[in-house]
Amino acid sequence: MKREEIMESVRSQMPEKRWTHTLGVMETAVRLAERYGADPVKADLAAILHDVCKYWRVDEQARIIRENGLPQDLLEYDKELWHAHAGAWVARTQYGVDDEEILDAIRYHTSGREKMTLLDKVVCLADYMEPGRDFPGVHNIRENAEHSLEKALLAGFDGTIRFLLDKRKRVYPLTLAARNGLIVELEAEEAQE
Amino acid sequence: MKREEIMESVRSQMPEKRWTHTLGVMETAVRLAERYGADPVKADLAAILHDVCKYWRVDEQARIIRENGLPQDLLEYDKELWHAHAGAWVARTQYGVDDEEILDAIRYHTSGREKMTLLDKVVCLADYMEPGRDFPGVHNIRENAEHSLEKALLAGFDGTIRFLLDKRKRVYPLTLAARNGLIVELEAEEAQE
Repeated sequence: MKREEIMESVRSQMPEKRWTHTLGVMETAVRLAERYGADPVKADLAAILHDVCKYWRVDEQARIIRENGLPQDLLEYDKELWHAHAGAWVARTQYGVDDEEILDAIRYHTSGREKMTLLDKVVCLADYMEPGRDFPGVHNIRENAEHSLEKALLAGFDGTIRFLLDKRKRVYPLTLAARNGLIVELEAEEAQE
Repeated sequence: MKREEIMESVRSQMPEKRWTHTLGVMETAVRLAERYGADPVKADLAAILHDVCKYWRVDEQARIIRENGLPQDLLEYDKELWHAHAGAWVARTQYGVDDEEILDAIRYHTSGREKMTLLDKVVCLADYMEPGRDFPGVHNIRENAEHSLEKALLAGFDGTIRFLLDKRKRVYPLTLAARNGLIVELEAEEAQE
């Protein structure tokens, strides 16, 4: 399927507002990829597809996770996490994406994971800071993104964790692993400086 | 070894200030045990021994963890976590404690764990809120402890996690699992009410 066909298909599966968000993530992901040396073409495709099934019925998202051997512990955590893993499966099976790097960037764009690839980071951070985002702390994330992908993403995850603590909601363990992993990376960088 | 002998031995291995803290944890743990239906005799003994090796050299604490099959991932995390696991080993091998409930309460008094027993909770919470403790949030923990062990402990763990986020330090995964587990318990309780 051509890029434009994928875009039209994805657009048809979400409200217009979410499509505007997707356009923002595409633009930001490509810019971050160029800035930090990731593949902008892969970043663009992952961004187009990252929320492909976010507006599908949650029971359909759950079914995809249950029937295709995706991590079953997701079903015990917030439904917001499901569309990312289900979306990677949809990208592969319905849009023919077979690049594992792109699929991982879709799969981990919400939770993060312990050892994030450059592309994982770019897409996840773009999702936090695209121009349409407006939440406490987003300016701090954007400022950090000017000089460090890791610092910006850490600010994003830490904000998510604080939000969940305040709301007395559970935190998905992979999100903690992601921010712990970023700290290890930043400490290794700073030790080299 | 008799209770008084254990107390004298533990006291000799820490500065006087830490012994005063230990007395505070003993008093608080016994009170919480009586309030919430845990065994006060077990709570007392776990409290006496909970910091037994906190002032031992850290390389000795690390050696105990390394050579006795204790969780090796501890060594990658904050040294503050080590004395709890090493302490349970010391309680067993040097003080003859063979009650697994008491050993677990010592072992998990700093990190917590996913499914905490009543005694785990009592000792961990007593360590957070004994009368000598003075940190932002401790009054909130003490207030919660009047009516809910789980709410009080959740406030304690959430405070620890926020502190670590602020300091850009890693959070031990078991601590997140502990607070996630308490939320599951509280939600189940509230669903029954």
